Amino acid sequence: MRTCPTHSAMKVASGSGDKARFFTQGRWWLKALPVKFKAKMVGMARNIKKLAQEDPRRVFHSLKVGLALTLVSTILYYPYPVYISFGFDAVWAVMTVVLVFEFSVGATLGRGLNRVIATLLAGGLGIGAHYLAKLFGRIGEPIILVFLVFLQAAISTFLRFFPKIKARYDYGMLIFNMTFSMITVSGFREDQILDIAQKRLSTIIIGAAACVIVSIVVFPVWAGEDLHNLIALNIEKLGNSLEGFGDEYFKRTGGEESKDDKKFLEGYKSVLNSKNSEESLANFAAWEPGHGRFLFRHPWKLYQKVGTLTRECAYRIEALNGCLNADIQPSSEVGSIIQEACTNTSLESGKALKELALAIKIMVPPSSADSHIENAKSAAKNIKSLLKSGIWEDIDLLKVIPGVTVASLLIDVVTCTEKIAESIYELASKAQFKSVEPTLSPKKLHSGQNQSIKKLVNGPDVGINVRELTLPSPPSENSSTSKASKQRMGV
Amino acid sequence: MRTCPTHSAMKVASGSGDKARFFTQGRWWLKALPVKFKAKMVGMARNIKKLAQEDPRRVFHSLKVGLALTLVSTILYYPYPVYISFGFDAVWAVMTVVLVFEFSVGATLGRGLNRVIATLLAGGLGIGAHYLAKLFGRIGEPIILVFLVFLQAAISTFLRFFPKIKARYDYGMLIFNMTFSMITVSGFREDQILDIAQKRLSTIIIGAAACVIVSIVVFPVWAGEDLHNLIALNIEKLGNSLEGFGDEYFKRTGGEESKDDKKFLEGYKSVLNSKNSEESLANFAAWEPGHGRFLFRHPWKLYQKVGTLTRECAYRIEALNGCLNADIQPSSEVGSIIQEACTNTSLESGKALKELALAIKIMVPPSSADSHIENAKSAAKNIKSLLKSGIWEDIDLLKVIPGVTVASLLIDVVTCTEKIAESIYELASKAQFKSVEPTLSPKKLHSGQNQSIKKLVNGPDVGINVRELTLPSPPSENSSTSKASKQRMGV
Repeated sequence: MRTCPTHSAMKVASGSGDKARFFTQGRWWLKALPVKFKAKMVGMARNIKKLAQEDPRRVFHSLKVGLALTLVSTILYYPYPVYISFGFDAVWAVMTVVLVFEFSVGATLGRGLNRVIATLLAGGLGIGAHYLAKLFGRIGEPIILVFLVFLQAAISTFLRFFPKIKARYDYGMLIFNMTFSMITVSGFREDQILDIAQKRLSTIIIGAAACVIVSIVVFPVWAGEDLHNLIALNIEKLGNSLEGFGDEYFKRTGGEESKDDKKFLEGYKSVLNSKNSEESLANFAAWEPGHGRFLFRHPWKLYQKVGTLTRECAYRIEALNGCLNADIQPSSEVGSIIQEACTNTSLESGKALKELALAIKIMVPPSSADSHIENAKSAAKNIKSLLKSGIWEDIDLLKVIPGVTVASLLIDVVTCTEKIAESIYELASKAQFKSVEPTLSPKKLHSGQNQSIKKLVNGPDVGINVRELTLPSPPSENSSTSKASKQRMGV
Repeated sequence: MRTCPTHSAMKVASGSGDKARFFTQGRWWLKALPVKFKAKMVGMARNIKKLAQEDPRRVFHSLKVGLALTLVSTILYYPYPVYISFGFDAVWAVMTVVLVFEFSVGATLGRGLNRVIATLLAGGLGIGAHYLAKLFGRIGEPIILVFLVFLQAAISTFLRFFPKIKARYDYGMLIFNMTFSMITVSGFREDQILDIAQKRLSTIIIGAAACVIVSIVVFPVWAGEDLHNLIALNIEKLGNSLEGFGDEYFKRTGGEESKDDKKFLEGYKSVLNSKNSEESLANFAAWEPGHGRFLFRHPWKLYQKVGTLTRECAYRIEALNGCLNADIQPSSEVGSIIQEACTNTSLESGKALKELALAIKIMVPPSSADSHIENAKSAAKNIKSLLKSGIWEDIDLLKVIPGVTVASLLIDVVTCTEKIAESIYELASKAQFKSVEPTLSPKKLHSGQNQSIKKLVNGPDVGINVRELTLPSPPSENSSTSKASKQRMGV
């Protein structure tokens, strides 16, 4: 609105006091209104489409919430006998559905359990408080009740600051506070307090159960699976950035301007700030029962460890990217000396990361990455011996610097890659990742990998369907074995 | 519990079937129980103390929630005539207090307004839906109502996925969904629907108003001020890390092991992941009215820009820190050549960042950092000319690399510092930061700076009291002017 010319023109007109012009402008503005409205609607429709395409599960989630609400209101309100027995308290079931239904099963289960258990506890304590206060007589009763409400509210609010409680029981503390206050305060006048507490608890259980059931039965979204896919995707993004980095860097050094879309080089950027989403997904996943390929008590915390190491690698790639866009680029002389070793290092560590990502995705020990890591390490060694050699003596050190910085960051990246691989080995052993059966051809596996990676790269940030990620090819008769596949099968 | 020796011993005993030993172990375990309980209690008390000391506002917040609840229940429940007029609906005021009262004024105001407006809108539409459904006769009515609930729930749930709506109106959408569903569904049986809607709205307004008033009147916590302080603190942390970096690096290069506590060097780490807290504080701050030094419509979005640049600088420092802990350190020969220039660069950019942080804190244009930035730039130039010189010809390049990497990262850091300074200039002009009055001596200002910085460094991560940050010294008669102070006064 602020930059709209007609609007600012209107202001000028009204400032000058020229009424006729003001009205002309006003009419224009009014005439322009439908056009603007249409543009806005089109923009909004485009946004909606984008949101839905990015992750179709958003649409399903919205419909699921509608479904759960419809279910609960149909069950509790419309059959007359049920309505009579619950009366106004049926409203709590509707409220519960709206407040408890979350995007993933884990979050919904967590909130549902928090709500039911907190209501139960707070209800019990509230009734206790009610009886306790009665002991103090007609005058003492309200004073004691108000004091208890104050004390309880202060304590439960403070407890929410504990990081552990905040992560898993925040909603429960809120509901405890709310229920205790309501029961204690309303108990002052109500006689059928036990009856109310019982009705409310059962409607809340009905609401929470409806949420959990709909959430699990209809197109379930598992936080654990999302975490698993997010970690794999992040590692893969780093792999893609690294794979392309060497070529791109030395192209620019050679003065070539690449015209292709180099967006994949910046894919790592979203990894820099993924800590919070990883944390919350891990917290939600802890509530989930076993599902699909994940058993109950799957080591979700280990994913966070892998995620932290991935982020550390992403910081190095951020520094590399800074070199890519720096004003000073190495001279072509320097470039030609280190090009091969550097390109190999980044390519091989990129490939290693992509193999690691694939290993997570298909849940096998990451031994297929070992050969790439070895290659990356020997390429890094090559860089070191190149730098040790005498060829630099005649070259101005200043021209060498950008190249040397890149080289040394790449050596650092190799170390990071090794650490990530180690953490994935740990994850694979704790989560009992199974090796791929020897009947499966490594070639097929790799073509499957490429397909799934393509899907992932083109696909949304979140919302990868697990069916896409499982091995797509049936056991094949082709049995050519590379060093990598031998290693993979050995584990 | 799992690693507890008595517990695992118990398991072994029960496994061997040796009942006598099992009971002995059990008795031990029972005897150990009070000790364990005491240890747990002591641990918890220590945690509580730590949480409260880190940010005493947490304690005040807890008490404030208790106060608001007490107020509302005293007003609505205990005076009999008020209770009669509101009846059961008074419960909504209690609920509103618990659900709306947040840590900062902005968050509380945002939730309060969201709740009231969403209830109003949903109430109106719900009543409309009720009348619309009546047109369809006794059989059509419930079908239409259920359909409307489904449609509305799906739409309002989907809208919550829009990033802009999620940031500011998420709670409103939730309440809209809840209220519309409740009114529509309950409307099927209730005749006094208008009366109920009006009562509920007024109790919700009372609850929300109690929250907002208590939140503003009693020890207010302003999200805007927190954001302002957080940004300044983050820049300062980077400054501290950089200031100490040069010395520490070349000490280690010289083979010395520093024994002092070098925690401040790692202070930058918390900056790496501060994006989310900055975002939410900026969202909350947008709800806040003018307060203290901040006018209404203070450019909070610009703080996020400064924050992003600060994080980019932090990524460089992370890479520097990687060099600090790397296996390969430059030889002492190399160290001695670049030490001075590198130490100067890191020291001066650290000082510049600290001046920038101070400028934000005391809300003056950041011209006092200019001289340090100039110094840092000329130190970086020195590094470059050192690298250009011929002294390297006889030195093995491999030994030079770690030093060169550090040098080139430091040159990068200087660029980042410049960018941060620019963004703070922009902030200063948009937020109309005032220059310090010429009567104020620069010496005093700097001593004040040191004090406040000391407080900040020793103090909590969040929760800096603004009173600590305002200029601590009265106008002074001392009028010696350095280049920096002249510059500062010029703007």
